[in-house]
Amino acid sequence: MMMEQLGDKKWGFQRNQELEASSISVRGVLKQLMANRNEEDQRSTIPLGGADPSMYPSYRTTPFVADAVADAVRSFNFNSYASNVEHLSKDLPYQLSADDVYLTVGCTQAIEIVVSVLSRPGANILLPRPGYPQYASRVGCSSLEARHFDLMPENGWEVDLDSVEALADENTVAMVIINPSNPCGNVFIYQHLKKIAETARKLGIFVISDEVYGHLAFGSNPFVPMGMFGSIVPVLTLGSLSKRWIVPGWRLGWIVTSDLNGIFQESGFAESLRSHLEITADPPTFMQGALTQILEQTKEDFFSKILNIMREDADFLYERIKEIPCLTCPHKPEGSMVVMVKLNLSLLEGVTDDVDFCMKLAKEESVIVLPGIALGLKNWLRISFAVEHSLLDDALGRIKAFYNKHAKKEY
Amino acid sequence: MMMEQLGDKKWGFQRNQELEASSISVRGVLKQLMANRNEEDQRSTIPLGGADPSMYPSYRTTPFVADAVADAVRSFNFNSYASNVEHLSKDLPYQLSADDVYLTVGCTQAIEIVVSVLSRPGANILLPRPGYPQYASRVGCSSLEARHFDLMPENGWEVDLDSVEALADENTVAMVIINPSNPCGNVFIYQHLKKIAETARKLGIFVISDEVYGHLAFGSNPFVPMGMFGSIVPVLTLGSLSKRWIVPGWRLGWIVTSDLNGIFQESGFAESLRSHLEITADPPTFMQGALTQILEQTKEDFFSKILNIMREDADFLYERIKEIPCLTCPHKPEGSMVVMVKLNLSLLEGVTDDVDFCMKLAKEESVIVLPGIALGLKNWLRISFAVEHSLLDDALGRIKAFYNKHAKKEY
Repeated sequence: MMMEQLGDKKWGFQRNQELEASSISVRGVLKQLMANRNEEDQRSTIPLGGADPSMYPSYRTTPFVADAVADAVRSFNFNSYASNVEHLSKDLPYQLSADDVYLTVGCTQAIEIVVSVLSRPGANILLPRPGYPQYASRVGCSSLEARHFDLMPENGWEVDLDSVEALADENTVAMVIINPSNPCGNVFIYQHLKKIAETARKLGIFVISDEVYGHLAFGSNPFVPMGMFGSIVPVLTLGSLSKRWIVPGWRLGWIVTSDLNGIFQESGFAESLRSHLEITADPPTFMQGALTQILEQTKEDFFSKILNIMREDADFLYERIKEIPCLTCPHKPEGSMVVMVKLNLSLLEGVTDDVDFCMKLAKEESVIVLPGIALGLKNWLRISFAVEHSLLDDALGRIKAFYNKHAKKEY
Repeated sequence: MMMEQLGDKKWGFQRNQELEASSISVRGVLKQLMANRNEEDQRSTIPLGGADPSMYPSYRTTPFVADAVADAVRSFNFNSYASNVEHLSKDLPYQLSADDVYLTVGCTQAIEIVVSVLSRPGANILLPRPGYPQYASRVGCSSLEARHFDLMPENGWEVDLDSVEALADENTVAMVIINPSNPCGNVFIYQHLKKIAETARKLGIFVISDEVYGHLAFGSNPFVPMGMFGSIVPVLTLGSLSKRWIVPGWRLGWIVTSDLNGIFQESGFAESLRSHLEITADPPTFMQGALTQILEQTKEDFFSKILNIMREDADFLYERIKEIPCLTCPHKPEGSMVVMVKLNLSLLEGVTDDVDFCMKLAKEESVIVLPGIALGLKNWLRISFAVEHSLLDDALGRIKAFYNKHAKKEY
């Protein structure tokens, strides 16, 4: 009786379909792929779709950082609300020209905050294609319009600055770069970053530099923080403990401003940011308490060990991909934990696109890789090399077997 | 030279003044009051403006909960990204009819998420007046319109259900209640909660029950979770470790759905909520790992010790307020950590309103209390009694001295 009455009832809530449509997440896509596996496959599933190696022995974080957090919790000095949203102005060692550092709940929240503060009706923001889908999803929840500029695989995934200039207008507030690159695996050189800064300055737009993979550069290009160009253009650097310390679940990130000319202050951006942070959830105070120690005292050994593993496995992946005819890797990975690989569908039979490839690969081989469409580039794949070496080896064998099974027969 | 060029330059960023205007936070107001103190006052500042007693010996959390978190961190089992946004469906012991539990970065993020998911252009939400300003601030960042119903001090701060009915229309999505009440300090009885549920059902609106002070009821009214009425109306309960475990800096909260008739599913709300959580920062995984142990194994002793302290100090405050002629407390506090006190300006000279009272009290007596206007009720004050007893005693003496100094002289 009550059920019927309630069923008839009109409720005030209606879904906001527009918002939801834009809400693509890596986590959501991975769940769909995982759900498509064949439960009868006795082999273990190999996840090359995410970028979280924290469960593997080779990638285990150093006990030092766990101790730093546990000590902060047990000290009873970090139980209270954070009194301030601004921290560590001088303490992040790699920031050559940091004005202020704001701690966030991982880089995910840093993205959310920056997008919210930049948002106003009629304004737009430039995002890289391919890119990290969190940006488009968060822009979709805001009143900003997303416009996509290209990264050029033939030029080592550098930014197509002509397309940036063509897209920007007087309502463009900022452009986003991700360096080292997710999903492309390249590391921008100093000169290219300088050109990005000069272009942004000419267009009157801020640069958001996502450096969540900061310092994870193991090729010939050294990692250069975008904050170095804070004298040319106002820079917002987003970072996190997640990748370099391999503790993505700990959710400690930051927003750093580098702006030697005081544009953030003058334009009111700095005040808008602080005002927004006042009404936004902080990371746990004991994480804030442990951070300085973690940043300053983590041993260099730990970082170099991880970089060596990543270099070897990135090279290994790159060589093995060459043996799979339907896949091409245009640029050897030299940073981050992932790389983009082009799919040649004309060599395959009965595989319609990248999503179909990934769904069938999950079902037939229990290997998970991310379809490029989730990152804005159809018929590409994003593959993570940051897994235990034996798993990577096994996965590449299975992908090759998948190719052999689905290869177009020549008669 | 470069400075001049950049100064002339037009940047695409412009402030979104509309959003910022609505952004009132307790933290922001307290900062202004703190900044108004007289630095030459040798006495220590007594903060009765917030609701965070975690720094006082009497209110120190139990070492058990710190150990649970430290053990989770050191286990290395909780370093990865959270695989799912939904947890503990059965584990929150006090939820009699919980459908699902979603963990959040404190209640602050729970508010942010619920407001975002309910938001669509043209829709509105009903908020209590006085209330917790975070709701209005977050509604201001969304496309929802805020409408305020009254809480009635003459009726023990119960909801004015007539004003709820008068405000609601077909675009109303939900109403918010806070129980035990911030800022009023009352605890709703079963029958009143049932009437709220029936009214909301009649109006076709969801009930958001903010129970961040859940179980902190020390008067004659027992705490009744709103989830008990999930058979009448769909209920979203917001909660946190912050208040009951006295670790507000730890930022572990939750959203619980109680909805025996499946309206959240049927209306698409549940799917919208999950989709939004996919692109939203989670709390640290080790906090999630420690939570079950904290919820299930914290000793009853700890809770009862805290309730006894709060009961004594709430009574003490209530009696001492009677001795200050310009203040009236209409309802003895019986829950939460705060209470509303009415300011009678006609008995004071040279004090223009509640903000002026609080600013002068900060300056002259180094006592911080929150002006009612920050909570929607002009010329009231919100006073916290959750501080060390000796400080509360001292603060009330200083407030009385402040009254004596500013009392209107009768000639």
